[in-house]
Amino acid sequence: MTRDLTIAEVRLTPILVADAPLLNTQGVHQPYTPRLIVEVVTADGITGFGETYGDTKYLELARPLAERLPGRSVMDVNGLFSLDLAVDEDRIRGAVDAGGLRGVQSADKLRLSVLSAFEVACLDAQGRALGLPVHALLGGRVRDVVEYSAYLFYKWAGHPEGVPAEPDDWGAALDPAGVVAQARQFKERYGFTSFKLKGGVFPPEEEIAAVRALAEAFPGHPLRLDPNGAWSVETSLKVAKELGDVLEYLEDPTLGTPAMAEVSAGTDVPLATNMCVTTFGEIKEAFTEDAVQVVLSDHHYWGGLRNTRHLAAICDVFGVGVSMHSNTHLGISLAAMTQVASTVPNLHHACDSHYPWQSEDVLTERLAFTDGRVAVSDAPGLGVELDRDELARLHRRWAEDDGTMRERDDAAAMRVAEPEWRTPVMPRW
Amino acid sequence: MTRDLTIAEVRLTPILVADAPLLNTQGVHQPYTPRLIVEVVTADGITGFGETYGDTKYLELARPLAERLPGRSVMDVNGLFSLDLAVDEDRIRGAVDAGGLRGVQSADKLRLSVLSAFEVACLDAQGRALGLPVHALLGGRVRDVVEYSAYLFYKWAGHPEGVPAEPDDWGAALDPAGVVAQARQFKERYGFTSFKLKGGVFPPEEEIAAVRALAEAFPGHPLRLDPNGAWSVETSLKVAKELGDVLEYLEDPTLGTPAMAEVSAGTDVPLATNMCVTTFGEIKEAFTEDAVQVVLSDHHYWGGLRNTRHLAAICDVFGVGVSMHSNTHLGISLAAMTQVASTVPNLHHACDSHYPWQSEDVLTERLAFTDGRVAVSDAPGLGVELDRDELARLHRRWAEDDGTMRERDDAAAMRVAEPEWRTPVMPRW
Repeated sequence: MTRDLTIAEVRLTPILVADAPLLNTQGVHQPYTPRLIVEVVTADGITGFGETYGDTKYLELARPLAERLPGRSVMDVNGLFSLDLAVDEDRIRGAVDAGGLRGVQSADKLRLSVLSAFEVACLDAQGRALGLPVHALLGGRVRDVVEYSAYLFYKWAGHPEGVPAEPDDWGAALDPAGVVAQARQFKERYGFTSFKLKGGVFPPEEEIAAVRALAEAFPGHPLRLDPNGAWSVETSLKVAKELGDVLEYLEDPTLGTPAMAEVSAGTDVPLATNMCVTTFGEIKEAFTEDAVQVVLSDHHYWGGLRNTRHLAAICDVFGVGVSMHSNTHLGISLAAMTQVASTVPNLHHACDSHYPWQSEDVLTERLAFTDGRVAVSDAPGLGVELDRDELARLHRRWAEDDGTMRERDDAAAMRVAEPEWRTPVMPRW
Repeated sequence: MTRDLTIAEVRLTPILVADAPLLNTQGVHQPYTPRLIVEVVTADGITGFGETYGDTKYLELARPLAERLPGRSVMDVNGLFSLDLAVDEDRIRGAVDAGGLRGVQSADKLRLSVLSAFEVACLDAQGRALGLPVHALLGGRVRDVVEYSAYLFYKWAGHPEGVPAEPDDWGAALDPAGVVAQARQFKERYGFTSFKLKGGVFPPEEEIAAVRALAEAFPGHPLRLDPNGAWSVETSLKVAKELGDVLEYLEDPTLGTPAMAEVSAGTDVPLATNMCVTTFGEIKEAFTEDAVQVVLSDHHYWGGLRNTRHLAAICDVFGVGVSMHSNTHLGISLAAMTQVASTVPNLHHACDSHYPWQSEDVLTERLAFTDGRVAVSDAPGLGVELDRDELARLHRRWAEDDGTMRERDDAAAMRVAEPEWRTPVMPRW
């Protein structure tokens, strides 16, 4: 063995990627959303890739971290997590994330969201240096494909007029018929057989009608509805009762563990979350109160692929299911999600992914969904390669932005169309 | 990369190793105790080592497992755990382990105790093949030494007369003065600065006196007492009250999670366990009932080094401390314990190890305790080498045994000296 696994260089590239006008309870996705691409380069010139959120608060932590890594071993991923990132707690305490619907912000979540991209990049570099897929570094895959769910959104046909944006060919979806038409497109293009509708956009009756329409159009297919905590306990229970016969699970109907526990106690419909259990510190209360039956892990904010496996082990012990959450992400993260998902024995639900909505990527070759599944790569590392021209183009877009797109803010994006729009007070219904 | 990480051969070598006449609540250690040495050999001829319990019930599961592994990748450790070992549940259900004081036997514990040796051997082989220490495969060490505790036992000067046995030079320890003298020897030879007394042997008053004597002889040193569940809740609370000012923790004062929870509710002395929380299935009840404050992990029966890390992550989430249990083991396991312990951030107590009691080992070079600590090896794999002559000698001892030593049974060993001895009914006091 004559490899040198020392980190020689870390490159950070903030980019802006096109996003569709997808509606959620906070507002609408911006035409462009910030992501951060992390490259960890070893002394032998081997490069590993990671990606995470790209808003300023992430960049501010990532930059000094990147400077501290040269000289350390790319194998030393445990050590990454003992580095003090000097997160300014006061700045974020109690604030709700404006662009991610990820629950309440916390220093820990912010810290881990940054670290995760470096952990993934280190694992990718390890795999490339050792000639092993990332899944082998996590103990080996227990399946050769990972199933994903179609992630349906209410959406406009296009972003507001006069705003620079990339067009999309999905059309509008603003009622049950539109949602079903979108689902058909998803099924046709990618073969998905389970469907999740992002709700919290219209009054519950309309969203119930949309889920009913999906159930009629796709009998027997697993369905999920996620209003991002927009409902009261009472409304949540009402929806659970009306849709109990067709829902695989109801995701974050209401905000906070106590309210979720109240809903959970009143229905047999499993409750999933990526809002009330988003850090290790939130697990104890939620699990002892039986507030959730499925945790939607997200390697970005749980701190990487190894923490995702710890989370799955914890869920297993408590009889809580595991699935996977997704926010706007590119192919590096989809590859990372697929690698870790392939190693988790108790992953019994199709994972979420926004990836089909992303028309742009920084990879030389996009990852493909076949029959709603992504094949688990056995190539070294994550098995993806960077398209440096495209990375440079998307970085230029970021560099030339006047600042309005660099911070994802779905409410601000909504105000372009509806100037009176304010981030709704919860519960909305 | 031109390595071939396919498993070509698996060798199993049952051995009998000398053990000292150490007393516990079930009886006394036999003169010889069975262990199983596992060797996993790759197609490139690289060999990884593991060890576990060597009683027949372990061998019966290990043998067919060993035959199934050739052709699999040594990287595929997750896959090991999905193999059906066909454990005969009926044969062991509800029985108490006769030789390990490991709580109630279960199919899961037996299965994982076997698998752990194969997991460790695979990780060792991975590390040797990749040129990396095992800790690097677990994310890297967060400390360069691992602290151990002196494991004090009441003991006879020698095994009963007329029984074949190896002598030991520790002398007898049957009262407070003997225990303190033993502790001084431990400190002098190995530098240990914390002490654990295996109790449950004499009435509680005598053991309280022994711990008091230790506290006077070694002021400020962390002390632990472990009667292996020999006490009632009432007795446990009484001992906790009398020793509360000097105990780091009280280990398994009483049997079963409900009784431990009752003791826990009545004292501020932290309770540790390696008897009521010994498998993942036992965690939920114990943690939600706040029955234990420290879990003593043991990679043998938790299923290896990666599961030990999962366990530590679970403990962290629930604010439960982590330390490490030990049963009679050799240097391969001490190396494995040290490697994984070096990667667990929340390991805040010195680990237990029987190793100083083992006068025999299968290594070319014994591991050394300096200032009570074992240095974390950065050599490939576990960093230990097998002494094949010694392995062969200890295997011959096993092969030539008439069967009496092949099953560890501390009560049977006690009956050699005290024919009327029966496994005590708990609680004894």
